[in-house]
Amino acid sequence: MGIPDADIFPNATGNALKTVEAHQNPADVTLYAGWFCPFVQRTWIALEEKGIPYQYKEENPYHKDKEFLKLSPKGLVPALVYKGRPIHESLVINEFLEDAFPDTKPLLPADPYERAQIRIAIDHVTKSIIPTFFKVLQSQEKDAQQAALKSLYEAFNAFAARFIGDGPFFAGKDLSLADLALIPWIGRLYIIEKNRGFDISNTDAKFQAWAKYVTEMESFKKTTSDYVHYEQIYGRYLRNEAQSEAAKATRAGGIIP
Amino acid sequence: MGIPDADIFPNATGNALKTVEAHQNPADVTLYAGWFCPFVQRTWIALEEKGIPYQYKEENPYHKDKEFLKLSPKGLVPALVYKGRPIHESLVINEFLEDAFPDTKPLLPADPYERAQIRIAIDHVTKSIIPTFFKVLQSQEKDAQQAALKSLYEAFNAFAARFIGDGPFFAGKDLSLADLALIPWIGRLYIIEKNRGFDISNTDAKFQAWAKYVTEMESFKKTTSDYVHYEQIYGRYLRNEAQSEAAKATRAGGIIP
Repeated sequence: MGIPDADIFPNATGNALKTVEAHQNPADVTLYAGWFCPFVQRTWIALEEKGIPYQYKEENPYHKDKEFLKLSPKGLVPALVYKGRPIHESLVINEFLEDAFPDTKPLLPADPYERAQIRIAIDHVTKSIIPTFFKVLQSQEKDAQQAALKSLYEAFNAFAARFIGDGPFFAGKDLSLADLALIPWIGRLYIIEKNRGFDISNTDAKFQAWAKYVTEMESFKKTTSDYVHYEQIYGRYLRNEAQSEAAKATRAGGIIP
Repeated sequence: MGIPDADIFPNATGNALKTVEAHQNPADVTLYAGWFCPFVQRTWIALEEKGIPYQYKEENPYHKDKEFLKLSPKGLVPALVYKGRPIHESLVINEFLEDAFPDTKPLLPADPYERAQIRIAIDHVTKSIIPTFFKVLQSQEKDAQQAALKSLYEAFNAFAARFIGDGPFFAGKDLSLADLALIPWIGRLYIIEKNRGFDISNTDAKFQAWAKYVTEMESFKKTTSDYVHYEQIYGRYLRNEAQSEAAKATRAGGIIP
């Protein structure tokens, strides 16, 4: 039986299923994915936005399949294989896609200083926003939930405070890796709205406008499954029973791998 | 008086002092540094290796000077100002130096796949090696120290297992950002040798050869102060009294900011 998390709904549904079905043919790029995983969605959206041909393969990261461990040493998704060579870590993969496919819709500006601003924002997402999001999900005591919510509002506002230009994206008129780093969690805010009292009106107008805009992107919708199936997964986080690496790290107060 | 960490020796000594003295004139790049800080040394070595003109400014990150907080929102060093515009986070700064000075001794290869391998290695340094190094330093119980040491050996071996090519550097014959991400901690291993029983002969030969080679680099020596002054600082870590962000994060089991 393994850990309960392994019993997840086995495949994408809704819009995401159509996208999966349209990407079954072998290509130079293979995406090893979990339909439910926000880290995967970062890379999935990048592939869609850049229009890179790819084959989608569903991988249950809780099974830690031996063959898959050769591609991704911790057994985590996403993993990407490019012409037979594996890469893991969503943020590294997205930088790789920029390096390997520079001419198809760049997701990093040419200006070195703007690139640095984008990477600082991504660092903020990694170190502040994501751990706080998991704390909101997994905290069981009301006080801890409220404290985590407050921290999450602050972390969202700090992200928006770093915007370059006047929107609609982080770096102005063009989508960038900074947006991609955070968008998947915006698509999961409804879980903490329903269960933890998250209210986006507690964040700055700039952040609200960004969140609304990015979740209306076609590439976001095309990589999003039916909400009911996410709820099954996030129920385990809300009861603090989840066994993903992120969930265990959050319980231990540690770093999300 | 503030926190005890603020009472650090006020400036670089030894070889590093000579380097500081040679970099007092205004330049397009200003490095806001702490002479003792391993995160600073990553960037300091990059500047030296690339031969970029820079002005060195000593900043005590425990004082959280208001002017400095404008450059580095958490008051952390290193911060870099390039033509009046600030950047923080050592890894972001080093990527910036590559983007802004591509022609002076590249520290990233041109091949996208190799670049990804280097970024995966840096991610491993961030998530596995550095937190484990601080655990070795700060653990007070013998059992916890031994467990942390074992994890550190494993993390070092995993780094070496990812080498591209046949040395002497991570990516073969050329120094890269993967080496720079870890070198400063290699320069501080003597602290845990003396106080925690660290023994590099417990790591793989490949790692040992790399560690020996990189600490013989001129740029490493030129950015290293006299050992006695590091010992004063690391004594607080060894007694688990240190108040740096890294020390507090380690105590809380959290993410090093």
